Order: sequence, then C-alpha cells, then structure tokens
Amino acid sequence: MSQVARPLKVLLDQKLSQFDDTWAPKIIARYNTNEVRLVKAEGEWVWHRHDETDELFLILEGEFDMDFRDGTVVVRPGELLIVPRGVEHRPAARRGQVRLLLIDPAGTPNTGDTRTATLAVDL
Amino acid sequence: MSQVARPLKVLLDQKLSQFDDTWAPKIIARYNTNEVRLVKAEGEWVWHRHDETDELFLILEGEFDMDFRDGTVVVRPGELLIVPRGVEHRPAARRGQVRLLLIDPAGTPNTGDTRTATLAVDL
Repeated sequence: MSQVARPLKVLLDQKLSQFDDTWAPKIIARYNTNEVRLVKAEGEWVWHRHDETDELFLILEGEFDMDFRDGTVVVRPGELLIVPRGVEHRPAARRGQVRLLLIDPAGTPNTGDTRTATLAVDL
Repeated sequence: MSQVARPLKVLLDQKLSQFDDTWAPKIIARYNTNEVRLVKAEGEWVWHRHDETDELFLILEGEFDMDFRDGTVVVRPGELLIVPRGVEHRPAARRGQVRLLLIDPAGTPNTGDTRTATLAVDL
C-alpha cells in the first residue's frame, strides 16, 4: 500500500454529500494500512464476520443496529462500536438512514468475503 | 497485546465527562493493535513526530490547530486529520478547550519519545 505523504484534512459532511448509494463504502483517508471509510446505510446488511480483523464503527447520524447472535446493540451518533474479529454480526439501519464512519484494514470485504463484497472505492 | 473479545460500545460524551486533565490521553477502546484515545487539549503541545506511524485525529469539540513546519491547519468538529509518519507537527488549542479522538498504535508516545510522553492510560 502506498504510504500517506502529506497531511490530509477531511470534512466528513462534505464527503457524505458526494454520494447517495447505500452499503457502498467510500475511502476518505488512509491511516497506516487501514482505510477510513464512510457508509450510508438503510435496511439490513448480511450476516458476516472478519476472522483477521476487528472493525471500528463510529455513528455520525441516525440510529444503527448491530445484530449479534445473542442480541442487538443500538448505537447512536457520538457512539463508537468495536466488533472483534471472528464475531458474527449483521449491521442494520431499520429506522431511517444511518451515516457511519468505519475503519478497516485495506481491502477488507464488507461481507466478509471478497467474492460477494461491495468493494470500498476512493471518494 | 490482548485481543478484544466482546463487542464494545463506547459513548464518547460519557467518557469525556470522566476526566479533566489536558494532553493526557485516555484509552477508550482497542482496534487490532491500535488504541482509540480521547484527549482534552488547551494551549500548545510540543513539536514532535512519529517515525513509525501515521496518526489519526477526529475533532469532537472546539477549534484545533495543527502546526506544521510550513503552516497551520485549522480543524473543527466533524473534521478528520491524518498526520503522516515522519512529519513534524505541533498540536495546539489556542481558542478554548478542544476535545479530540485519536487513533495510535499501542504505546505510541504523545511527544514522539517515551521518555517525555504522557502515557495513555485506560479510562
């Protein structure tokens, strides 16, 4: 992966205004070998897990559900959620659109499987 | 480093209400080998750099200055700043207290030097 060369400032709202598709991660910055991604979410995503990495979610707008096999955690703006590696989860936005910031290692598939993933693209 | 075992939800405002000291990073979550840190800032920090890691700053409250050798970048709530490895920088909060979320690899010294750093502690 190419290293970051210059300081980078990103206005999250400005980036969020530049796309409308849901469950389609946009890369807005890189931090070491990680991608900082923005996602708009509506409805349910698929059950999946990441065996090699924890996943960081920061809720920016809306009320987000993270389903786990033993229950659902509701996460709201200003709240951070860490999903540990190996833990099955299903992201969902059941009460209107949710806007999220995620951090994942470069190339992490959002379905847990590169064959079915919506690949993250640079915004 | 111990791996995260269970999903972790963190309310940022709740954590911020639990401490008052400035420039003293509090670890509120871990993501792979990284520490998610909250910091309250007032006044200037020291010039330093991290040769081994990029650094991610998200401004939560207040108006933050990041000085670089060729100028200052002002960063506000909802804005993200990536400082690449090897780049000298001086964080500063010159117009009131600033509240920040940072991500650093575990053990990263906030002065760039473990001998002078205010070590990050768990909150």
